[in-house]
Amino acid sequence: MTTLAARPIEVSAPHRPTTMRALIKHHAGTELQFVSNRPVPTPGPRDVLIRVKKVGICGTDRHIWEWDAWAAGRIPVGIVTGHEFVGTIEQVGSAVTNYKPGQRVSAEGHITAWKDYNSRTGNAHIASDTKIIGIDRDGCFAEYVCVPEENVWPVHASIPDKIAAVLDPLGNAVHTVMAANVSAKSVLVTGTGIIGLMSITVAKAAGASRIFATDLDPKRRALAKKLGATEAFDPRDDQWIADIRKHCRGEGVDVLLEMSGASTALTQGFEALRNGGTAALLGLFGKPVTFDINKLVIFKGCTVLGINGRKMFETWYQMEELLLSGRLELEDIVTHEFPLEQFKKAHETMISGEGIKVVMAVN
Amino acid sequence: MTTLAARPIEVSAPHRPTTMRALIKHHAGTELQFVSNRPVPTPGPRDVLIRVKKVGICGTDRHIWEWDAWAAGRIPVGIVTGHEFVGTIEQVGSAVTNYKPGQRVSAEGHITAWKDYNSRTGNAHIASDTKIIGIDRDGCFAEYVCVPEENVWPVHASIPDKIAAVLDPLGNAVHTVMAANVSAKSVLVTGTGIIGLMSITVAKAAGASRIFATDLDPKRRALAKKLGATEAFDPRDDQWIADIRKHCRGEGVDVLLEMSGASTALTQGFEALRNGGTAALLGLFGKPVTFDINKLVIFKGCTVLGINGRKMFETWYQMEELLLSGRLELEDIVTHEFPLEQFKKAHETMISGEGIKVVMAVN
Amino acid sequence: MTTLAARPIEVSAPHRPTTMRALIKHHAGTELQFVSNRPVPTPGPRDVLIRVKKVGICGTDRHIWEWDAWAAGRIPVGIVTGHEFVGTIEQVGSAVTNYKPGQRVSAEGHITAWKDYNSRTGNAHIASDTKIIGIDRDGCFAEYVCVPEENVWPVHASIPDKIAAVLDPLGNAVHTVMAANVSAKSVLVTGTGIIGLMSITVAKAAGASRIFATDLDPKRRALAKKLGATEAFDPRDDQWIADIRKHCRGEGVDVLLEMSGASTALTQGFEALRNGGTAALLGLFGKPVTFDINKLVIFKGCTVLGINGRKMFETWYQMEELLLSGRLELEDIVTHEFPLEQFKKAHETMISGEGIKVVMAVN
Amino acid sequence: MTTLAARPIEVSAPHRPTTMRALIKHHAGTELQFVSNRPVPTPGPRDVLIRVKKVGICGTDRHIWEWDAWAAGRIPVGIVTGHEFVGTIEQVGSAVTNYKPGQRVSAEGHITAWKDYNSRTGNAHIASDTKIIGIDRDGCFAEYVCVPEENVWPVHASIPDKIAAVLDPLGNAVHTVMAANVSAKSVLVTGTGIIGLMSITVAKAAGASRIFATDLDPKRRALAKKLGATEAFDPRDDQWIADIRKHCRGEGVDVLLEMSGASTALTQGFEALRNGGTAALLGLFGKPVTFDINKLVIFKGCTVLGINGRKMFETWYQMEELLLSGRLELEDIVTHEFPLEQFKKAHETMISGEGIKVVMAVN
Repeated sequence: MTTLAARPIEVSAPHRPTTMRALIKHHAGTELQFVSNRPVPTPGPRDVLIRVKKVGICGTDRHIWEWDAWAAGRIPVGIVTGHEFVGTIEQVGSAVTNYKPGQRVSAEGHITAWKDYNSRTGNAHIASDTKIIGIDRDGCFAEYVCVPEENVWPVHASIPDKIAAVLDPLGNAVHTVMAANVSAKSVLVTGTGIIGLMSITVAKAAGASRIFATDLDPKRRALAKKLGATEAFDPRDDQWIADIRKHCRGEGVDVLLEMSGASTALTQGFEALRNGGTAALLGLFGKPVTFDINKLVIFKGCTVLGINGRKMFETWYQMEELLLSGRLELEDIVTHEFPLEQFKKAHETMISGEGIKVVMAVN
Repeated sequence: MTTLAARPIEVSAPHRPTTMRALIKHHAGTELQFVSNRPVPTPGPRDVLIRVKKVGICGTDRHIWEWDAWAAGRIPVGIVTGHEFVGTIEQVGSAVTNYKPGQRVSAEGHITAWKDYNSRTGNAHIASDTKIIGIDRDGCFAEYVCVPEENVWPVHASIPDKIAAVLDPLGNAVHTVMAANVSAKSVLVTGTGIIGLMSITVAKAAGASRIFATDLDPKRRALAKKLGATEAFDPRDDQWIADIRKHCRGEGVDVLLEMSGASTALTQGFEALRNGGTAALLGLFGKPVTFDINKLVIFKGCTVLGINGRKMFETWYQMEELLLSGRLELEDIVTHEFPLEQFKKAHETMISGEGIKVVMAVN
Repeated sequence: MTTLAARPIEVSAPHRPTTMRALIKHHAGTELQFVSNRPVPTPGPRDVLIRVKKVGICGTDRHIWEWDAWAAGRIPVGIVTGHEFVGTIEQVGSAVTNYKPGQRVSAEGHITAWKDYNSRTGNAHIASDTKIIGIDRDGCFAEYVCVPEENVWPVHASIPDKIAAVLDPLGNAVHTVMAANVSAKSVLVTGTGIIGLMSITVAKAAGASRIFATDLDPKRRALAKKLGATEAFDPRDDQWIADIRKHCRGEGVDVLLEMSGASTALTQGFEALRNGGTAALLGLFGKPVTFDINKLVIFKGCTVLGINGRKMFETWYQMEELLLSGRLELEDIVTHEFPLEQFKKAHETMISGEGIKVVMAVN
Repeated sequence: MTTLAARPIEVSAPHRPTTMRALIKHHAGTELQFVSNRPVPTPGPRDVLIRVKKVGICGTDRHIWEWDAWAAGRIPVGIVTGHEFVGTIEQVGSAVTNYKPGQRVSAEGHITAWKDYNSRTGNAHIASDTKIIGIDRDGCFAEYVCVPEENVWPVHASIPDKIAAVLDPLGNAVHTVMAANVSAKSVLVTGTGIIGLMSITVAKAAGASRIFATDLDPKRRALAKKLGATEAFDPRDDQWIADIRKHCRGEGVDVLLEMSGASTALTQGFEALRNGGTAALLGLFGKPVTFDINKLVIFKGCTVLGINGRKMFETWYQMEELLLSGRLELEDIVTHEFPLEQFKKAHETMISGEGIKVVMAVN
């Protein structure tokens, strides 16, 4: 094993502690627990150990916090949660070739063995064997997190930590927008939660000519317009679909980005879509949806795209380009930052809707 | 108006009768009526009058024959029905520039004013103002039919009348297969009605590597295999989806062509589709479908295509190429031919399932 | 012919003169001649007669003005020149169905019979039988111009005449940019003539993340930056390709838009393009180009797109959307306007480079 | 390093020799040298050691054999040559996760660090840092070859060794054909060398409706027709382009696959291509080509694709599907097989043109 010998395992990190602060899902119930004696993970030969600087709280983290049916069915009790982060490489495994300690990085949280069809053809985001950090294994709400080399994303020097911490959800928006190909097109975003709002600024930066949005909440609609929406509608207003058609040659929008997970929004969104339009679906529905496929998909000749995660790593490159363009307006979206120790307040701020995207500073 | 003067209206058709034989929807009820004194239509300045040679009976004609709710709600009593045909140009209108009497032609039955977005961008098949011959206006179950010049399709000399009469439904199959891009891919066809069967031979000719089919009827499954299906499954057999996955790297087929209009088939078809696969939906569902969009579309990262009619005229060119390849096996699909006067027997043969595609000879 | 009778030819335009002012190519030599007694054209049954308001002078018009080898070989002496315009419909032919007098319109100048493969599949801009107004037949440097109904484009009310007059060249830029798919990508524009400059503002509006430009002329480079270019290089500077690579992950730009027609720019542009990038070529070369296809196309795995005219009418819809976005900055591009009678000054202003796009007011 | 400890390095291969038979480029001149004492390579932690069964001789190997200018400039004297092979995994490195000894495999010979844009977005075949086995480092004309885990391709049980040995060149043909999207299209293959011939059977299996070929050699033309070409032309015959147009609606073929690397063929091929057609270029040209880009690319509105290697691993999956379809006819292409020791005869058989694809049996 001369090759291994030639690349000695990184051992010279004398000051690294053996335990760390972390938020763990300590029991099969609500909330998380702060601990200060979690063992620091040891990277395998192909892994990278990252010292976490800032993390974002995702809608998924809310499900875990509230311990709903989905969380109870999936999350192993005892894991460190969290999957949105930025940090600095602390140590690389013996077989790692592309990274070295000191680099500022984020990471794609979907981990695959790179052996199925999608992994080997540029679509690893929908690999059949995916495990997600902070959901299926230890995540980033901790001082250190460990991911395979292939998942690491070097963060461009011009991107501040606060934004680098939320590349994961921003990537959901970028993936949806880019899959739908919005350039020089009219776009409808149904639902302006965190990803919906991000999608508005992303779609505008990516060249959407006109962006319409719907949301029940007038504050969200106002923010949608501030971020670039031409018009934001209350979907309970009977006139809104007719209004959109009037704006769009009497035919409807070119693109629908479904971000609400509400079946009413789904049907209305397709009604507002022109024949031959494209619908990208990201919002998850609470239960199976009853839907008029004949009228809304087949007769319309629509293209419907299921969107999941982020393309590894086309989405990340696109995201970097959009950030470098200077056109993404994220100041009004990443609203709060707390130290890790104030995790309760951080989660409550997100859950109450007072905050949109809430970040925690770890190191 | 020198231009008009320079292109005198075609009047020299001395032997053409003023009335003709035709099948009309004579009352708001079942069946059709054969008449022999229907006035021959007069072409407008942009129209082409075609002397019909052979026609095909479509599944839509069955709905009209049986006068179901859809037919009662759409078909104007009194029209000549039928929309699949081949014939010879008899006369061209004064402003027609691309055709002349004597040419053997078929025609796209979807008529549009060519003024909306889709009409002007190569997608007239999903124009918002479409009227269909034999459904919204007089059709081809008659000695003569009139269509706008833009709808005419010159039939290649190598294509026999019997096949040329059914380019419309063959075009549905070609449109579905080509939209889904089956080349070097595994394909599942759910439902082997007339279009489903055509899709099998079309998919094979278009380069699908392996084709799987499902149908409740063992005779249809046997025919599916004869036409090129690798395997044909009874969808009531619990093992079939697992069998398909085993054939396909444990992941599923690359492409689903949904031809049944059955909600069970839809769900099963998506279950048999690999992550990132493409589903093209042509079959119409009897009512809105309850569907697990999260699991079957979003998490899978699928692309879903609503398919309607035939692309004008990309599908027709593709169909001609596929026919010229000599690889389409249509002998077992176009099973019967009757003279127009035996229209009752023709319709009954199709409705009973004894025939698959039934053709009537008019002239 | 009852149909014709039912749609009487438009004859009620009592005040229309029988002759008009026009610029004609009066001899096989330089310049144009202003005449005031050109017969007003008579529309055929499928034609639309348009009263011209404003026209743009194209680079092609310069070739015609200067009577170079290309012009001498193609332009029929005696025709009215000009192909960029906006006007108002004066009269429609007897078989016209989609337009009526009074509508403000522009038109696609490429005229086809709509019978070949490309015409019938959404790519009429590359039809094999194309004739161009102002080049092969009478154009728009006149009080009236006649085009087939299919070529008419209704101009959105929000677009001022000055811009509506130059939709043809703007469409060249939009076609090139949209074909290359610039959304969230880095772009290099080689050559900042009129279309090159338009491409910069179009690419930015269409979502290009970063735009680089090259031109020999420092004033053009300054204007390129004003219009949105991140950086504009003098291509004689040896460092510029290395600089672009440094900006672009050390690899090169995602997209090349070749607008110069210079073989050096072509080679340099491909050198600055990353592996797997897309090059859209619009600039015409003075002679066949000697080019290292192995290195610049094959090993790079590039996609090269030949761009010609504007897609009929996808480009026009995209252009309308981009104009409605409010993001196109055309004020610095459409620099001068003269009355038709000052056509000499107008052409000289364009030819000297003092003006970029020069417009003439006709009515 | 518990993870490493948990996956002990594979050491239990007691009977493996330390030296092996191999063909090496022994000096800066013609031919290769057979040696029997080449040290068996030692796999690094991410590498797989493969016991070679059969290998193919590539056109590149001819350049190396003949030591032309390209070879002299690139090939390091002393390496083992060869890059087409099938074999069995002998040993896996300590950090390898997806393979185990005993699996029958081939491998993609392009080795990248998976860190640039193309590597991370499904286009590793055009990575900027590629090294090729048998060209830049030791290859497969030996009893053992070592490649990184990511390059391994498990060979489907139904594919015989003789074919599995030549998946690399077959993949060139599949990549070219699939990039050009030939389904239901007419195709012209210029040049019927080994890849050109493979392209014919691949294009037919992938759904090309009609295939035309050109070659100077009447035997190759005869073989082209046997493999599925509708017609094979001598390109010195002035009529052939007109003949192709006549077959193709007077317009030209939909797709050009340039396989000759001859500049005349390139120009003629584009002349035979219809407007809006797609040209995929694989053949390498002896020197920069002088080419009428205006006429052949820009005015035609063509798409030109530079093709290099094989997509990693989309091409390999497509190839497997095409082989599983049973439609690839490779018997007439893989013409000869020799034991490794008869490498001189094997190379001479290939170089003389007596053989098309020549295989050598190693173990």
